[in-house]
Amino acid sequence: MIQNEIKVFCPATIANISCGFDVLGLALGSVGDEMVIRKTELPGIVITRITGQDLPLEAQKNVAGVAGLAMLESLNYQGGFELEIHKKIKAGSGIGSSAASASGVVWGINQLLGEPCTEEQLVRFAMEGEKLASGTPHADNVAPAIYGGITLVRSSDPLDVVRIHCPSELYASVVHPHIEIKTADSRKILRTSISLADGIRQWGNLGALIAGFYKEDYALISRSLEDHIIEPIRSILIPGFDEIKQQALAAGALGCGISGSGPSIFSLSKGEETAQNAARAMSDVLSKLDLEHDAYVSGINTEGIKLITGKGVSP
Amino acid sequence: MIQNEIKVFCPATIANISCGFDVLGLALGSVGDEMVIRKTELPGIVITRITGQDLPLEAQKNVAGVAGLAMLESLNYQGGFELEIHKKIKAGSGIGSSAASASGVVWGINQLLGEPCTEEQLVRFAMEGEKLASGTPHADNVAPAIYGGITLVRSSDPLDVVRIHCPSELYASVVHPHIEIKTADSRKILRTSISLADGIRQWGNLGALIAGFYKEDYALISRSLEDHIIEPIRSILIPGFDEIKQQALAAGALGCGISGSGPSIFSLSKGEETAQNAARAMSDVLSKLDLEHDAYVSGINTEGIKLITGKGVSP
Repeated sequence: MIQNEIKVFCPATIANISCGFDVLGLALGSVGDEMVIRKTELPGIVITRITGQDLPLEAQKNVAGVAGLAMLESLNYQGGFELEIHKKIKAGSGIGSSAASASGVVWGINQLLGEPCTEEQLVRFAMEGEKLASGTPHADNVAPAIYGGITLVRSSDPLDVVRIHCPSELYASVVHPHIEIKTADSRKILRTSISLADGIRQWGNLGALIAGFYKEDYALISRSLEDHIIEPIRSILIPGFDEIKQQALAAGALGCGISGSGPSIFSLSKGEETAQNAARAMSDVLSKLDLEHDAYVSGINTEGIKLITGKGVSP
Repeated sequence: MIQNEIKVFCPATIANISCGFDVLGLALGSVGDEMVIRKTELPGIVITRITGQDLPLEAQKNVAGVAGLAMLESLNYQGGFELEIHKKIKAGSGIGSSAASASGVVWGINQLLGEPCTEEQLVRFAMEGEKLASGTPHADNVAPAIYGGITLVRSSDPLDVVRIHCPSELYASVVHPHIEIKTADSRKILRTSISLADGIRQWGNLGALIAGFYKEDYALISRSLEDHIIEPIRSILIPGFDEIKQQALAAGALGCGISGSGPSIFSLSKGEETAQNAARAMSDVLSKLDLEHDAYVSGINTEGIKLITGKGVSP
């Protein structure tokens, strides 16, 4: 049976993860969009419906459209696909909203075409969507969305994505304060140079964090979740950040930092109960500041994009 | 039976390992010093004999003496120890000559006293010896000497040493050209700041290298053994470096770089035969340049300092 329509879950993702700035990312299990991808005779990508968010239906102006078109062009595919995008991740939240759309479409098309592409190729197509969203074709959200679990982008050009072992009891808590920070602005305020001493500290922490993931050594993970380079600068843009971090750690979280370029703040915990406590503590700070926000608790999604349903016709 | 004299093997070590500047190190299996440590009634450290090298016998001026004294003081130990140091690692070679002496003595004393100290404490005492040798109490050679295998120093202060899984077929080749580079000078020529982009590249590589060690993924280890920050500067001080590196890689090595602050050059290979080929290729370049040198091939020493013999008396 050949499928001609599938519905997929496109996970939200946390990029950077403290010391892993620009290289590390992980996929969430219970936060994400849904997307329907349908094979059609007409060439190209047609977006038939978007719910949950006001986004362009025109394929060339939509991250999912652009990613899909990049894939069809690369495959020299003559047919086309219709998309329905059901956004649950808010744009500009810092948990990979554009990455979810860009990854979902290429993963779905790959399924409907009998998997002609590798995951690495899919990441490359999805990066074209990211380029439309933020100006640079970065992979730190699309890689975990497509591979699942924790990923490290060793290099963007040439692309080199490394799957990292994910400890079984790792949970994420995320709060999304409803303020706007543009990725491009958030990047502009960073210094273009850092001290060698800070660099050493950062790669010492990242090396230890990766080892902590493999050893499932939560104390080591906790000690390594530090960022002395980006967080002190970017956190200025997020009201209450220091207090939120302090409360998350007081509630038992292993570490806490900015998700992507913000404004969402994540913490990682050992076990779901601690993650719930951390989310509550983080949320309480925002409530006291009268800041509208969403709060999530999620396990790590080790599969990445997931099939929800598939409808098929026999050939 | 209580031992009152032991003879130990003190391994040579490779610090930095390309992208792991100032944090990563590994211990060699077949290159190292020997040291005899003997319990005495007299308080303090007395160095009775040094062979293979012209080094101060006065404990306060000798790295082994200083490390041993730091340990005795910390333990408030009233007795003392005699040392015989048989140097095989040349001073200033860049493969941890001072670290071998500083680590050997504290490890040996710990054995003779019934292991009152943790490995982390021993590293701290040995760092006092390193401080005498190079002016700064760094741990990137003493940590692998004492822990064995591959180690990552996440932080020096407070000290946090992480054991890293060592792939079973990893071999090291080392050439030591007989030229003098002082660690202090080699550090002085480094820039105190780096670009954020270079920093990201370095921590991406280090994260991937650590993952490569855990996965025993030799291709990934090879891709990750890059250093765009330190190597381009320090390699200027080592005649023939670029050609040596090129020949090591052509001979099949996974990667090649400067050992510690040089002048020794290391390469890592999968399997002993490739490591032998790499060592020969590296050595050939130095021979053509008429540079006297030593060449070594060694497995990774997963034990660290090793007991050779122990003599005891019944209490």
